[in-house]
Amino acid sequence: MTIFLPKGYRFAAMHCGLKADPAKLDLSLIVSDHPATAAGVYTQNITCGAPVQVDRSRTPGEGFQAVVVNSRVANDCTGKQGWADAMEMTALAAQTVGAAPDKALVMSTGVIGALMPMEKIRAGIPELGKRLRPGEEAFLEAAHGFMTTDTVTKTASKALCLSDGTTINIAGICKGAAMIGPNMATMLALVMTDAALSPALAQKLLKEAVDVSFNCISVEGHTSPSDTVLLLANGAASALVAQSDIDAFADALRLMCMDLAKQIPADGEGCSHLITIDITGCKDRDSARAIARTIANDVLVKTSIYGADPNWGRIISAAGNAGVPFDPQKVSLKLNGTELYRTGTPLPFDNKAVSDSIRVSRETHFDISFAEGNAAITFWTTDLTTEYVRLNADYTT
Amino acid sequence: MTIFLPKGYRFAAMHCGLKADPAKLDLSLIVSDHPATAAGVYTQNITCGAPVQVDRSRTPGEGFQAVVVNSRVANDCTGKQGWADAMEMTALAAQTVGAAPDKALVMSTGVIGALMPMEKIRAGIPELGKRLRPGEEAFLEAAHGFMTTDTVTKTASKALCLSDGTTINIAGICKGAAMIGPNMATMLALVMTDAALSPALAQKLLKEAVDVSFNCISVEGHTSPSDTVLLLANGAASALVAQSDIDAFADALRLMCMDLAKQIPADGEGCSHLITIDITGCKDRDSARAIARTIANDVLVKTSIYGADPNWGRIISAAGNAGVPFDPQKVSLKLNGTELYRTGTPLPFDNKAVSDSIRVSRETHFDISFAEGNAAITFWTTDLTTEYVRLNADYTT
Repeated sequence: MTIFLPKGYRFAAMHCGLKADPAKLDLSLIVSDHPATAAGVYTQNITCGAPVQVDRSRTPGEGFQAVVVNSRVANDCTGKQGWADAMEMTALAAQTVGAAPDKALVMSTGVIGALMPMEKIRAGIPELGKRLRPGEEAFLEAAHGFMTTDTVTKTASKALCLSDGTTINIAGICKGAAMIGPNMATMLALVMTDAALSPALAQKLLKEAVDVSFNCISVEGHTSPSDTVLLLANGAASALVAQSDIDAFADALRLMCMDLAKQIPADGEGCSHLITIDITGCKDRDSARAIARTIANDVLVKTSIYGADPNWGRIISAAGNAGVPFDPQKVSLKLNGTELYRTGTPLPFDNKAVSDSIRVSRETHFDISFAEGNAAITFWTTDLTTEYVRLNADYTT
Repeated sequence: MTIFLPKGYRFAAMHCGLKADPAKLDLSLIVSDHPATAAGVYTQNITCGAPVQVDRSRTPGEGFQAVVVNSRVANDCTGKQGWADAMEMTALAAQTVGAAPDKALVMSTGVIGALMPMEKIRAGIPELGKRLRPGEEAFLEAAHGFMTTDTVTKTASKALCLSDGTTINIAGICKGAAMIGPNMATMLALVMTDAALSPALAQKLLKEAVDVSFNCISVEGHTSPSDTVLLLANGAASALVAQSDIDAFADALRLMCMDLAKQIPADGEGCSHLITIDITGCKDRDSARAIARTIANDVLVKTSIYGADPNWGRIISAAGNAGVPFDPQKVSLKLNGTELYRTGTPLPFDNKAVSDSIRVSRETHFDISFAEGNAAITFWTTDLTTEYVRLNADYTT
C-alpha cells in the first residue's frame, strides 16, 4: 500500500531497554525540519500523565520540530519526578535538531505508576538523533516504536490536491489495544502533514476529526490517562491552506483519523470480533455517541458476541442505561442485517442462522434506530474474550 | 442461623417448567394475610420491563397481599403482550388470597426479549396458592424460586424491640449474580416486615436503605431493566411504628439491606474475589459513590485482581474517569492494608507480598482517600474471570 508521506519529516526508532525483549522497539523520534504548527487533543482522565500535562501546556502552538514517543512506561501517577522526566525528554528531543527545549512534544504509554528509566532515555534520544532519516521504511520503524501490546503497526495516509495545484500529504501513526475508551481524546496518535495551518485552525480541524474517529472507539471503556492525539503541520508542501480548501482538507483529515482509529479495536487485546455499531435517529450526535458507547462498553453485550449468542435483549438494555432519554416503543434493532426487534416488539427469528453469521465472520454489525431526531454515529468496539481476561490478569507482574 | 420471620406471611415455590431442570424451582408466591403497605425502588434503565412498569404504577400504596416471582424469563422488551402478561400474573396471585386483582405485585428476571410462557404460569400460580404455608422452610423454598444463575439463596433478617415493648421482625430475600450495576435501584429483592408503616414512610425508609446497600454493589455494571426492591409492611406485630422508633427501624432496615446486597457480588458469576472499596474524603456521598462505582466496574481493575496483580495504577486511573473533580496530588491508596500511593506519589512496595495477599484470600480491600471533604462510602464488587466470560458467552443459546 502506498504511503503518502508528508515532506520535511524524518524518523528513527530503537530498542533502548524499556522492554525486556531486545527485538522490540520501544523509543521513537519524529522530527520536522521545518518548524511546524502543533495541535493536540488529550484525555479527560483527571489523573492524566506527565506527558499529557507537558504537551497540553504547549499546544496549540508554532515552531515545533520533534516528538519523542516511548512504550512500556506511561509516566502517569508519577508525581513531581514524572513531570521533570517528561520535560527532560522533550528537551533532549529538541536538542537533536537544534530547536529550543520547549519546541518538542512527548507521548508515553505503558505501565501506570512506574518512574521512567531516565538513564536509558538519556542514552537513547541522542542516539536516535544520529539515526534520523526520511522515507517509508523509517516511518514504519517509528510506528513500531509506538507499540505496547499491539500486534500490528497502525498507520494511515492521504494525499490531497489543493486548488492552486499543489499536492499535500497527511500521514498518521497510532497505537492501542487495551485501556481504550477515549472520551474527547484517545490513545496515542501522531498525525503529520506538509500543509501549512495556523494553530487555531489546526486545533479546530483536529478536534472535529477526533470527535468522529478516536472518540468513537473502545475496547473495554477505560479512558487512559495517557490518551493523546497530536497534529503537526509543517508547511513543507504548501503555503497556508486557502479558505476554499479547508473543507477538503478537513474531510481528508477526518477520513484518515477514522481509518487510524478503527485499527485500534480491530487489534483489540485478545478479541475475536470487531463490532460496528450504527446508531440512527437520535436527537443529536452526543446522544447517539453516548448510546453507542454504553453498548460498546457493555461486558454482557461483548461476551454474547464472543459466544456467537444473538442475545439481543442485552443490546437494548445497554442502550437503556446510557442516560439518554428515548421512547422504548420506537426502538428497532438489526444484528448482521437480520431484524430482531421492531418498534419495541420482539420478532421471531432463526436463532441458529444469526448465531452462525456471528461465528463465521470477524466483523459483527449492530444497526439500532430511534425516533428522536436525525443524528447518527458509527462506533467501533471489540468483543470480550477469555483471552482478554488472561492477558490483563497478569500485566505488571 | 435464626431467621427472624415477620408474622402474617406465607410462602410457596415450585418448578412450573420455565427452567429445563425439573429439580430447580422457578416460581415463588409470597402472601401477606394482613393487607400490607408496599414501597418499591426500581431500575433507572429506560427499557425497564413490564413487571417493573406494573409495580411502579402501584407503589407506594396500601392493601397488598401477594407477590409472585419467577426466574428464567425477565419479561423485558416484550411490548404490549409483556404488559398484559405481567398484569395477569398479579391478578392470578391476588386471586389465591381473595384480594382485588391490583393488590398484588410481580418480579421477573431471566432472558430479555422472550415472552412469558403463560400456560405454565396460569397452571402454576393457583397450584402455589394451595401450597402456601408459614415458617422458615417455606421461606427458604421461596428464596430458591428467586434464583437464576445464583449458586446460593440470599436471605437476611433482623428483629427489633420497639419502645412499647413489642418485637417486630424484618426479613428479606434477594437474587442476582450478573447484570449487576444498580443505579438508584437493584436486582430483585423482597423485604418483609410485620411492623406497620405508612406508604410515604415505607417509601422514604426503603429509598434510604437502598442508597447505601443495593446501590453500592456491582458485578459488571450493567443496570438490569428488571431491578426491583420491594418492601412489604403488614402491621401483624405492631401498630404504626412510633416517631421515636423510626430511627431504630431505619437502622435495622439499612443493615439488613446491606447484608442482603453484599451477598450478590459475593456470589458474582464465575468470580474469585469479593472486592470491598472504601472511599473517604469526598465532597459528598454521590461523588464518593460515583468514584467507587467507576472503579468497581473497571474491567482492567477487575482482571488485575483475578490475576493477583497489584497493578494499582489502574485503580487510580479508573477513579480519574468517574467524572468527579478531585486534586490528583492528594489521593492516597492502600491495597489489602499496604500503602502503595501517598498524596500523588508512588511508594516502593514488595510486589510479591501484596500479590500473595490477593491470591490467598477471597476478599480484597481497596482504601482510597481524597482531600475534598468528609463524605465516605463502602462499595462491593467482584473480579472479572475467564469463567465469567465463558458463562456469559453462551446464555440464551
